[in-house]
Amino acid sequence: MKRSEVKKAQERTAELFARAGIVLTEEERGRIEVAGFGLGRLEEQGLELITYVNTDRYCAKELALFPGQTCPEHLHPPVNGEPGKMETFRCRWGTVYLYVVGERAGEIRAAVPAGSEAWYTVFREIVLGPGEQYTIPPGTKHWFQGGPEGAIVSEFSSTSRDEFDVFTDPSIVRIPVIEEDE
Amino acid sequence: MKRSEVKKAQERTAELFARAGIVLTEEERGRIEVAGFGLGRLEEQGLELITYVNTDRYCAKELALFPGQTCPEHLHPPVNGEPGKMETFRCRWGTVYLYVVGERAGEIRAAVPAGSEAWYTVFREIVLGPGEQYTIPPGTKHWFQGGPEGAIVSEFSSTSRDEFDVFTDPSIVRIPVIEEDE
Repeated sequence: MKRSEVKKAQERTAELFARAGIVLTEEERGRIEVAGFGLGRLEEQGLELITYVNTDRYCAKELALFPGQTCPEHLHPPVNGEPGKMETFRCRWGTVYLYVVGERAGEIRAAVPAGSEAWYTVFREIVLGPGEQYTIPPGTKHWFQGGPEGAIVSEFSSTSRDEFDVFTDPSIVRIPVIEEDE
Repeated sequence: MKRSEVKKAQERTAELFARAGIVLTEEERGRIEVAGFGLGRLEEQGLELITYVNTDRYCAKELALFPGQTCPEHLHPPVNGEPGKMETFRCRWGTVYLYVVGERAGEIRAAVPAGSEAWYTVFREIVLGPGEQYTIPPGTKHWFQGGPEGAIVSEFSSTSRDEFDVFTDPSIVRIPVIEEDE
């Protein structure tokens, strides 16, 4: 992703946070993480987030999803003998469609990103609106998508070690290099 | 505290959360914890909170302080060989005056609760407005007070074991029995 694209997505994310009543400091707005997963289709498969705190005991982030934007399927494996990351998603604003391992109940509300169908394999649907939350156990495959307005989701979790995340799509790079604009 | 007093404080807290744009479910509104610490002076020394999640790995709560309300000085000791609770306070709305161990820099903004001066012993001041946060290391004495409008504070932390909290004021009971109204 180019620096200019990152900056544009950061601004859009800051607006979404503001609309949801989530206040960030100036410093935080400048370090919003824009994750395109090396796919080059940020609006379709991507995630924006700010990490409030990540210690060796716990982590807290605020996640933003643009309308229809999907965070691709992945799981958090055990690291250094510790169980994988456990995370609680609490929807603060908008709607998020979350999918985890388990029985699929008919049609799902999210649209699987076209061309990536092979990399979406779990379809037990959990729909979260403001004030609703769900805890994803360690090692559970999951993916999620913003609803028609997008979504703001607080993530409370054990320590984050994003570099160890295992994505179903083998072409994904969790932390790609940002390219400077010419 | 009487059941009717708990209910009244829950309603006031729910209003404060709503004003701050924090959405709770109906079920959560009904289990807002009203902590008067057995002192019988809730408006002066007390804390209202909702626990979103508390696992053996992490915890997340939303705290509410009425204007000028003080959470009394305490620390989180080691439990079962684990270091004491570590917590990050992130102010979402209003102002919170936080005091921890360390050098006092002149006058403080909070008013120490009258008659309880002996039980307030740390005065390093940290003032948090919306979007500002501070992490309190394990075993650190601290107390905090809501500003003129009160405060809403997200607490991200390691596992909560409130029953082990050590308060400076020996007359404090962290989890007193609620009395039914006659």
